[in-house]
Amino acid sequence: MSERSEKELKDIKLLGNQGIKYKYDYDPSVLETFENKHQGNDYFVKFNCPEFTSVCPKTGQPDFATIYISYVPGKLMVESKSLKLYFFSFRNHGDFHEDCINMIMKDLINLLDPKYIEVWGKFTPRGGISIDPYCNYGRKGTKWEEVAEKRLFYHDMYPEKVDNR
Amino acid sequence: MSERSEKELKDIKLLGNQGIKYKYDYDPSVLETFENKHQGNDYFVKFNCPEFTSVCPKTGQPDFATIYISYVPGKLMVESKSLKLYFFSFRNHGDFHEDCINMIMKDLINLLDPKYIEVWGKFTPRGGISIDPYCNYGRKGTKWEEVAEKRLFYHDMYPEKVDNR
Amino acid sequence: MSERSEKELKDIKLLGNQGIKYKYDYDPSVLETFENKHQGNDYFVKFNCPEFTSVCPKTGQPDFATIYISYVPGKLMVESKSLKLYFFSFRNHGDFHEDCINMIMKDLINLLDPKYIEVWGKFTPRGGISIDPYCNYGRKGTKWEEVAEKRLFYHDMYPEKVDNR
Amino acid sequence: MSERSEKELKDIKLLGNQGIKYKYDYDPSVLETFENKHQGNDYFVKFNCPEFTSVCPKTGQPDFATIYISYVPGKLMVESKSLKLYFFSFRNHGDFHEDCINMIMKDLINLLDPKYIEVWGKFTPRGGISIDPYCNYGRKGTKWEEVAEKRLFYHDMYPEKVDNR
Amino acid sequence: MSERSEKELKDIKLLGNQGIKYKYDYDPSVLETFENKHQGNDYFVKFNCPEFTSVCPKTGQPDFATIYISYVPGKLMVESKSLKLYFFSFRNHGDFHEDCINMIMKDLINLLDPKYIEVWGKFTPRGGISIDPYCNYGRKGTKWEEVAEKRLFYHDMYPEKVDNR
Amino acid sequence: MSERSEKELKDIKLLGNQGIKYKYDYDPSVLETFENKHQGNDYFVKFNCPEFTSVCPKTGQPDFATIYISYVPGKLMVESKSLKLYFFSFRNHGDFHEDCINMIMKDLINLLDPKYIEVWGKFTPRGGISIDPYCNYGRKGTKWEEVAEKRLFYHDMYPEKVDNR
Amino acid sequence: MSERSEKELKDIKLLGNQGIKYKYDYDPSVLETFENKHQGNDYFVKFNCPEFTSVCPKTGQPDFATIYISYVPGKLMVESKSLKLYFFSFRNHGDFHEDCINMIMKDLINLLDPKYIEVWGKFTPRGGISIDPYCNYGRKGTKWEEVAEKRLFYHDMYPEKVDNR
Amino acid sequence: MSERSEKELKDIKLLGNQGIKYKYDYDPSVLETFENKHQGNDYFVKFNCPEFTSVCPKTGQPDFATIYISYVPGKLMVESKSLKLYFFSFRNHGDFHEDCINMIMKDLINLLDPKYIEVWGKFTPRGGISIDPYCNYGRKGTKWEEVAEKRLFYHDMYPEKVDNR
Amino acid sequence: MSERSEKELKDIKLLGNQGIKYKYDYDPSVLETFENKHQGNDYFVKFNCPEFTSVCPKTGQPDFATIYISYVPGKLMVESKSLKLYFFSFRNHGDFHEDCINMIMKDLINLLDPKYIEVWGKFTPRGGISIDPYCNYGRKGTKWEEVAEKRLFYHDMYPEKVDNR
Amino acid sequence: MSERSEKELKDIKLLGNQGIKYKYDYDPSVLETFENKHQGNDYFVKFNCPEFTSVCPKTGQPDFATIYISYVPGKLMVESKSLKLYFFSFRNHGDFHEDCINMIMKDLINLLDPKYIEVWGKFTPRGGISIDPYCNYGRKGTKWEEVAEKRLFYHDMYPEKVDNR
Ligand SMILES: [Ca+2]
Ligand SMILES: [Ca+2]
Ligand SMILES: [Ca+2]
Ligand SMILES: [Ca+2]
Ligand SMILES: [Ca+2]
Ligand SMILES: [Ca+2]
Ligand SMILES: [Ca+2]
Ligand SMILES: [Ca+2]
Ligand SMILES: [Ca+2]
Ligand SMILES: [Ca+2]
Ligand SMILES: [Ca+2]
Ligand SMILES: [Ca+2]
Ligand SMILES: [Ca+2]
Ligand SMILES: [Ca+2]
Ligand SMILES: [Ca+2]
Ligand SMILES: [Ca+2]
Repeated sequence: MSERSEKELKDIKLLGNQGIKYKYDYDPSVLETFENKHQGNDYFVKFNCPEFTSVCPKTGQPDFATIYISYVPGKLMVESKSLKLYFFSFRNHGDFHEDCINMIMKDLINLLDPKYIEVWGKFTPRGGISIDPYCNYGRKGTKWEEVAEKRLFYHDMYPEKVDNR
Repeated sequence: MSERSEKELKDIKLLGNQGIKYKYDYDPSVLETFENKHQGNDYFVKFNCPEFTSVCPKTGQPDFATIYISYVPGKLMVESKSLKLYFFSFRNHGDFHEDCINMIMKDLINLLDPKYIEVWGKFTPRGGISIDPYCNYGRKGTKWEEVAEKRLFYHDMYPEKVDNR
Repeated sequence: MSERSEKELKDIKLLGNQGIKYKYDYDPSVLETFENKHQGNDYFVKFNCPEFTSVCPKTGQPDFATIYISYVPGKLMVESKSLKLYFFSFRNHGDFHEDCINMIMKDLINLLDPKYIEVWGKFTPRGGISIDPYCNYGRKGTKWEEVAEKRLFYHDMYPEKVDNR
Repeated sequence: MSERSEKELKDIKLLGNQGIKYKYDYDPSVLETFENKHQGNDYFVKFNCPEFTSVCPKTGQPDFATIYISYVPGKLMVESKSLKLYFFSFRNHGDFHEDCINMIMKDLINLLDPKYIEVWGKFTPRGGISIDPYCNYGRKGTKWEEVAEKRLFYHDMYPEKVDNR
Repeated sequence: MSERSEKELKDIKLLGNQGIKYKYDYDPSVLETFENKHQGNDYFVKFNCPEFTSVCPKTGQPDFATIYISYVPGKLMVESKSLKLYFFSFRNHGDFHEDCINMIMKDLINLLDPKYIEVWGKFTPRGGISIDPYCNYGRKGTKWEEVAEKRLFYHDMYPEKVDNR
Repeated sequence: MSERSEKELKDIKLLGNQGIKYKYDYDPSVLETFENKHQGNDYFVKFNCPEFTSVCPKTGQPDFATIYISYVPGKLMVESKSLKLYFFSFRNHGDFHEDCINMIMKDLINLLDPKYIEVWGKFTPRGGISIDPYCNYGRKGTKWEEVAEKRLFYHDMYPEKVDNR
Repeated sequence: MSERSEKELKDIKLLGNQGIKYKYDYDPSVLETFENKHQGNDYFVKFNCPEFTSVCPKTGQPDFATIYISYVPGKLMVESKSLKLYFFSFRNHGDFHEDCINMIMKDLINLLDPKYIEVWGKFTPRGGISIDPYCNYGRKGTKWEEVAEKRLFYHDMYPEKVDNR
Repeated sequence: MSERSEKELKDIKLLGNQGIKYKYDYDPSVLETFENKHQGNDYFVKFNCPEFTSVCPKTGQPDFATIYISYVPGKLMVESKSLKLYFFSFRNHGDFHEDCINMIMKDLINLLDPKYIEVWGKFTPRGGISIDPYCNYGRKGTKWEEVAEKRLFYHDMYPEKVDNR
Repeated sequence: MSERSEKELKDIKLLGNQGIKYKYDYDPSVLETFENKHQGNDYFVKFNCPEFTSVCPKTGQPDFATIYISYVPGKLMVESKSLKLYFFSFRNHGDFHEDCINMIMKDLINLLDPKYIEVWGKFTPRGGISIDPYCNYGRKGTKWEEVAEKRLFYHDMYPEKVDNR
Repeated sequence: MSERSEKELKDIKLLGNQGIKYKYDYDPSVLETFENKHQGNDYFVKFNCPEFTSVCPKTGQPDFATIYISYVPGKLMVESKSLKLYFFSFRNHGDFHEDCINMIMKDLINLLDPKYIEVWGKFTPRGGISIDPYCNYGRKGTKWEEVAEKRLFYHDMYPEKVDNR
């Protein structure tokens, strides 16, 4: 199997590009895609994103989270540098934790039309309590719709130890 | 998707409010809710609460626990600062570990009418033995009723290592 | 929901009682129970017991284990201080690891008639090998009988790392 | 060397005593001592106390900490059950973290006249920041005075990893 | 339930016996059994064996592994000291990792006729790569045959982190 | 069961051979196989490979990953030293993470015709985000085809903690 | 020793105050102090701050760090909520890691005139490499000047394990 | 250098001896020694003993500890199986934690006349607090006397994290 | 204190520059410096570099290491992206572990004339043994010369646990 | 600085050599050396060796240890593959743990005439107790003689946690 050709890479505009102007207000339009070369077999891609920050819609204080995104690509895949820029665009955005996580999933569904996707945020505590929202989605009318339901039903039966330190 | 508007936030009275008078006796009335903006898709929200304390009903000695709450919201969601105040109200409350955990679940069911909820307490040892109660619930007549049963059946098959240090 | 009343607590004789005389020979009669106030919903209670010791029936040498007990109460619950005394009564008892774990389960079934119970012992090594017995039980003729079988079938598919240090 | 005799134990009033009435307001008078039987050699005793709670003097909210106390006894030693009761007496006490830790040290100096003592508190975060005060003391005019200074000078050169989870 | 009697223990010849002559060449005949006293209920017994060593059949270099054995006993159980001696007998034995793990399982099946058994080896790396073979077995014509298949199908879906340090 | 004979080992040309010339450009032809001696029972073999490196197809910068490969052998098994050489051949190869992982799986399917195989790569972060692709395969027309689908459906429901440190 | 009185607390304006307007541009003027009540004994106070973020002065991309601050107070102590606001003011500030850490120390020296202070930043990686600057200071003409030198000389002789995951 | 000869080993009576009768009451006479073959160079020997148990002198309840012993041998060394038997003899012995640790040190000084020795006990919690005594000794009139003082002065400046779980 | 100005940043050519051509043969000339703005106080800067790879000079096989570099800057500081490129230039370089670590230190001394520097490499195992070289340097005729000697004398007295997994 | 030349490597006979015949009886003559190219600066080299095994001189049972060797080379360095073979030669050697560790150090002193060396063995438990011997050496008449004494004096003041699992 040959390497990714220049032609295949020509739509990747952000990766390795130094002239980028970063946006710090919510903007899903920065997201870029490339073609899935392995459409013959379903597979998972996970992004580990421990450097997410937004602000509280009520108090204006910064919030911090690690976000885990897992998806099964259809025709399109999300380019990771553009995903980084998309996360930057939450830096001045005010919303509840639960809302941010749902928005991220919906934006990626719109972008990618994935077979399956899930987004899990693990925020740092405020007032001694931390909040971890999790949402997922399977493409309607496919077996992944049922998979999404099953994964939701059996979500996180072993909560990680949290001691606020 | 727009940020949470001021109108949407107007019922959140405790968050960012400095004039709060804390209650140290059991009082579920402090709990507040806000509307679930994502009722189109089921999803999980988890609260990690490592700063729970109550007192032993027999000896009057303080007990300490980390409490994990996971729920699938229906129309309402619990606001996390009010949850904090609710936990404060156990500070002088005397009850067995098993009773506290069931009470917390029942109070949140009354408040939220959630699709699904589970509450897991992990207490520190007394006399060399620690106790971890776990209870859950799925809304009657929905698929979540069966999910609750399944999650209970397969609960905690990998107990975490505990050595009292 | 009110705290545990004095009336409800009157059968708890060992908790907070200083005049106890400890037994160091196997004696299941020390176990005490109290009433389950939440019989409307099934739930789990786990005891973490890292301070168990018995002796080898052949060589007379002490053995050490951490024992994890999980059960779903029926009408009765085991009081944790009496459980501690019951464990003390193994201090001079000689039996194989596998026998101790089965005995503990059978004694608790006799005491509590629980819906479900499991007992897992993790012993320290002798001759470079450590032994971890696990047994469980579901009340005959209920759904918990099948649950017990399922939990046994899928027991411990991820053995914890053990390096004898 | 013989076991502790009954005569030696007669001043230990709290240990194993069930009639104790707990105080939840600051009260150093609950502390009890017993005689150091090994005055011929200096040695350390450390107490690990992960169940400390007080309240914020400004907002009235509960604070939580793990407190580590190390001391070199002179003639007297502090009995650990009375130390537990002393910690209970902070449950409704309002003071800054730094003040609590200094008070604990000063109370124990008054009680024990130890050769050396140090107290280290590790609190859970508020607003994303946690605070860890540490103070120590060596008996004036002895080599322990210089030891206290040295231990302070080289205190905590390897801060533990803290990520608020 | 009484302790193991002397009569029950009379076939255990190796445990506590100091005159043993160790074999360092593969010899399954050293394995000893004792009777399962709990044939009324199926249960698991796991052996953690972090001190296994054999040699490479091609290069003659030593290999090292931690071996985990889990089984559900039928009428017979394997005595752990004899298991230790059996492992010693691999010390000069040359075989691939995959072959050793299958041999161990087959020898124990021959010895015990267990209802179920599985053997998992985790070897140290050679050339930067480590190898972990896993095999299992359920008694033909029983429900354990299907259990073995299921456990194989869902084996190790969460590989432990390995970084060769 | 006898050790691997010289005859059985005669096709293993790389193991213990010092005259090897390493290739640093992608070359699946270096892979070698040997016969599976345990075709009577299905079992898993896992390779832990924390020393994988390739280069970014767009920027030319090195990428690093730990790769976990699990398979159920048919008639043939892959020799681990040749697997090492195969991984070396990615050292100057430029491709996206997702492409590398799929290629590795496809090369091993071609080589081994395994009953089942899965490949999981865990790469280090670029721009604060790390990517973990996972793909799998079951032999068409066998029960392993369905197993592959099930394992994909329930893949990685507990993402490991990642904090980029 | 009495609790902090209202009079002692009257200069603490930010703690518990909900009307605060957050600044996201570097502003050391938000820092507030309160009086050290324990000037009779030197002691350490440490702040653990895992939620620090600034931006790269060259590329404009966000940087993330955990910052540990330890100081020995003189007459003044820094109030932790104002420290939080001060850290918020770096959110849009562009500077190298090494410059941020030195600035924080210098601002706190100006504010507090501490006997001793040290600031340690641990940033997340860029391009596979992470940077951890550390600076410290002891008040000139006191023993703490020498202590600062000694602590610098023996700084971090056991670097924590970092693997970028 | 030759192996230990039979003559050198003839005083080792307990190691490998199956006829031993265990004592469960404090008895330092079970300790055995052998000759130090490396008297030309000072060196450390540490014993890690996580299976220590005694009883509380006041309440009769069992206590559990991990004990670490480090010593620099003079002419004699303590044989580890006899050390095990010595620890067994505490099984029914009632004494405070601090007394046990000092007794163990004094018994080993009497037995071995070591150049240096230290004993550190880490007990499990009672009432939420655990106690860790540490004592040490250097042979009078040698440099080890000063070493003992220095090691005591700088003892345990980094207390391990303890959370009672 | 103002942010780094454009003038101050003008010599930083690699950071954010996309047109870079990577070298995979040893080339210290890629290293770039910038001015130390805090020459008034000595401080440490550490680089954590877990993605180092070179090749064995004898066998041609790849080697992997995590490299930790700590230095006290004089007038110049090393820019981290150029450090990354410098490490890339070892990718095809053949040398022993001990030689690589010494070379890196010497190259950085030539580049920076630092007050102090140390380089610690932690390689993955070959043949079951891993090698960790450490070297350091203090500027001649300054106090840092003696510091270097002291840090070497007390290097790594607590070796991290290594088990090759 | 150039790579190691072929001339420099010509005395390295074992590395990459496939015709080696392994010895399983103690034989220090297999050790090989190469020249230290950095004699201008003292530095440390550490070997992590988690795959050590010998046999008990009294019972003939295998012992297992992780051995850490750190040394400061003089003119000669030990080649790591020959070190591996040397460790293999203990495979059938019978000696006490303390003797093995001292022998290894003495053999390496004879071979290398190092400036400094230390050897630390951490063995797995027998009878619930594990033994960790540590010895060291500094070249007589140099500053390293005093360093050896200091490192011995301050050896292992923070024993690692050991729980035999
Ligand atoms: Ca908080
Ligand atoms: Ca934590
Ligand atoms: Ca307790
Ligand atoms: Ca623990
Ligand atoms: Ca053992
Ligand atoms: Ca372990
Ligand atoms: Ca917080
Ligand atoms: Ca943490
Ligand atoms: Ca590892
Ligand atoms: Ca991490
Ligand atoms: Ca990065
Ligand atoms: Ca890490
Ligand atoms: Ca703990
Ligand atoms: Ca290797
Ligand atoms: Ca490891
Ligand atoms: Ca352990």
